[in-house]
Amino acid sequence: MTTTTESLTALYAEVQQFHAAQMQALDGGDFDTYSATFTEDGEFEHTPGRPAARTRAGIAEELRGYHRERFADDPVQRRHSFSMLRLAPRPDGAIDATFYCLVITSRPGIRVPEIAPSCTVHDVLVREQGKLLTRSRRVAHDYLSLV
Amino acid sequence: MTTTTESLTALYAEVQQFHAAQMQALDGGDFDTYSATFTEDGEFEHTPGRPAARTRAGIAEELRGYHRERFADDPVQRRHSFSMLRLAPRPDGAIDATFYCLVITSRPGIRVPEIAPSCTVHDVLVREQGKLLTRSRRVAHDYLSLV
Amino acid sequence: MTTTTESLTALYAEVQQFHAAQMQALDGGDFDTYSATFTEDGEFEHTPGRPAARTRAGIAEELRGYHRERFADDPVQRRHSFSMLRLAPRPDGAIDATFYCLVITSRPGIRVPEIAPSCTVHDVLVREQGKLLTRSRRVAHDYLSLV
Repeated sequence: MTTTTESLTALYAEVQQFHAAQMQALDGGDFDTYSATFTEDGEFEHTPGRPAARTRAGIAEELRGYHRERFADDPVQRRHSFSMLRLAPRPDGAIDATFYCLVITSRPGIRVPEIAPSCTVHDVLVREQGKLLTRSRRVAHDYLSLV
Repeated sequence: MTTTTESLTALYAEVQQFHAAQMQALDGGDFDTYSATFTEDGEFEHTPGRPAARTRAGIAEELRGYHRERFADDPVQRRHSFSMLRLAPRPDGAIDATFYCLVITSRPGIRVPEIAPSCTVHDVLVREQGKLLTRSRRVAHDYLSLV
Repeated sequence: MTTTTESLTALYAEVQQFHAAQMQALDGGDFDTYSATFTEDGEFEHTPGRPAARTRAGIAEELRGYHRERFADDPVQRRHSFSMLRLAPRPDGAIDATFYCLVITSRPGIRVPEIAPSCTVHDVLVREQGKLLTRSRRVAHDYLSLV
């Protein structure tokens, strides 16, 4: 096993666990925990046509506003499900992570959730004091990318 | 790489492989193999409003009854797809595993499956003679949790 | 940690990363990169009733033909999302990989994708000059397997 393989092995599980904790926080409505998984100057572009949110405080604020706007009169449980994670470590230590995401939205009493949209996400991850953080996240929606 | 990271790396892959084998057994209708992935005194709460099944024999029996009831006149191929696995090892060696699950149901000749419900699952895993086992599994259905 | 555990740990992440790169190539329409993830004499059975494609050149050709036929007048973004990966290394070094796959098809301007069919995939993976390659892939469609 080469050093590269060892690193990828540990990194792969670490990023999966990082993403799981990050998205369970988001889906649980804990926007402060979610934004704390970004670097202090982190960038988050989650919806085409909306400018990227910047900084931890800005990301949490953006999410609070977005959820107020969209879901105030429509209580939902959303889940973000990632798959097909591909990691590409850069020489400077940052890591490009590219993966698929389905957004699953359940409404009270309705057994069949809406599953939409299908997205591709590109993260740049960095390590600060040993901990992974998201420096930037860009979400592309498949139904818009084709037009 | 700290011991903690090494442990999480190996554990993460091991739990993913454990879950895959466990659910391929369930989806293949092999309820004895499924129930053997629980501890002898294991607990499985799969549907809100039904009491938890207990012990390996009890879990296999519950599954046989449930499938007879629901699917006797409706042949289906179900798949349970997990994602966003988050592990939290406890000091005593047990492991809390929290993850999302989609249930995918295909019917003969119908290309588009039903995908429902969206769930969150919480497992407590333990190790006996080196092997992972599920001590308890609780399934929460998103469309019911919101009510 | 036994040698077997160590091997499974590294192999598990490696196969996930391999599958992610392979399917991101396929979903990006890069059929030459996709077919290069097979052995020179690789076999790919992707649709029931169609004979298996054979050799890298044959697999790329088959994919080009299939996409021309099905999607020429229907621009789509397809995503293949794998889950529940179970690996079983053979004594000769080949690896059986069995997993679930959902095919997600987005069309321009339509937010809700079609998610169909639900499949089970069986790969035989081999290592050539240190690199994983697919020697054979067989896709079973759940809605057809039940008939």
